[in-house]
Amino acid sequence: MPKSVTFDREQVMMNVMELFWKKGYNGTSMQDLVDATGLNRSSFYNSFGDKFSLFQEALKHYQTQQDQTIRSFTKGAHSPRKAIISLFEGIAGDISAGNHKGCMITSCTTEMASNDDRVKNFLVENKKHVVDMFEILIKDAQEAGEIDKQRNAHSLALYLFSSLQGLRVLSMIDEEVELVVKEILTVI
Amino acid sequence: MPKSVTFDREQVMMNVMELFWKKGYNGTSMQDLVDATGLNRSSFYNSFGDKFSLFQEALKHYQTQQDQTIRSFTKGAHSPRKAIISLFEGIAGDISAGNHKGCMITSCTTEMASNDDRVKNFLVENKKHVVDMFEILIKDAQEAGEIDKQRNAHSLALYLFSSLQGLRVLSMIDEEVELVVKEILTVI
Repeated sequence: MPKSVTFDREQVMMNVMELFWKKGYNGTSMQDLVDATGLNRSSFYNSFGDKFSLFQEALKHYQTQQDQTIRSFTKGAHSPRKAIISLFEGIAGDISAGNHKGCMITSCTTEMASNDDRVKNFLVENKKHVVDMFEILIKDAQEAGEIDKQRNAHSLALYLFSSLQGLRVLSMIDEEVELVVKEILTVI
Repeated sequence: MPKSVTFDREQVMMNVMELFWKKGYNGTSMQDLVDATGLNRSSFYNSFGDKFSLFQEALKHYQTQQDQTIRSFTKGAHSPRKAIISLFEGIAGDISAGNHKGCMITSCTTEMASNDDRVKNFLVENKKHVVDMFEILIKDAQEAGEIDKQRNAHSLALYLFSSLQGLRVLSMIDEEVELVVKEILTVI
C-alpha cells in the first residue's frame, strides 16, 4: 500500500499560485514547484498531475480570489456607479500601499494567449465574466440616472476592463497609479 | 584563424525580436534562438553574447521600431490633439486588421519587471520616454486651445500610456478594441 501523503491543499495552492504569478508559467521550474509545495516529485504528480494541470488550477484559484477582491471593494458602495469607483480606488490604494505584483491573469495573457488555445479560452471567458459584471453595474447606473443612458454600456464595460489591465501593467513600473485612476473614472 | 561568419545582423535581430515577442524570455530556448538565427551555438555566442544580452538588444530594437510606429501614426496629423487620436486609431486599426501579437514591452513588463532590476530599469526609462512624448503633445494641445489648460498634462500623459498597455493586453483576447479606443479618447 503506498504511503499516504497529507498536506494542506489550500495552502499549497496559494504557494503555487504566488509562484506562477511572480515567475510566470515558463519561468517556474519543477524544482521551484517542489520547493514551494514541500512535496517530492512523485507525490506532486500524484496529487496535482503535470505542471500545466497545476497552472490551470492555480489560474482558477486566482480567479476566485479576484472575484472576492471585486466584491470586497464594491459591497459597501451606495450606488452602482460608486461601486465601480470604489473598485478602481480600492485597487489603486492597494498598489499605492506597495502591491506591485500586477495581476496573474494579465501576466498570463501576455505570456500565453498567443501560444496556448486552452489558456486563451480561459482568458476570453474570464474577460467576458468581468466585462459582464461591469456592464450590469453600468446599466444599473444608467437606470439610476448616474450615467447617461445614451452611452453604450458594453463599450464602457470593455473600456473599464481594458483600463484595469493597463493599470496592473503600469503598477509594476510606476508609483503614480492614483493619478491614472482619476483620469480613467472621468469617462463614467 | 577561426572561420569568419557572415550574416545579416539586422535580419537576425528581427527574427530574434519576433521570437522573444511571441514566446517571452523564459519561453524561448537556446535551440529556438539557434533555429531562428541559423547560426550554430558557437557563432551565436561569439556574435551576440549570452541569451540575456541578446534579449536586451532585441528590446532596444523593438523600442526603435515602436518610436517609428508612433511617428508614422502621428506625422500627418494637423494638430497635437489629432496626433494623439491618430496614434490610438492607428493602433486600433492595426489590431482590427489582425495584429493580435500585443506589445513586446508590455509582455516584458509582466514577465520580468518583478524579477530583474536591469530589465525593470529599461522599462521605467521606456515608460518615461513615452509619457514625456504624450506630455509634450498634451501641453501643445493645451496651448492650441484643444485641451483645457486646467487639466494636469502629466496625469493625462500617464493615463494615455496606461491605456495603451491595457489596449495591447486586450488585443490578445478580444476583437472590439475600436470601441475601447473611442472611450479612451473621450478623456482628451
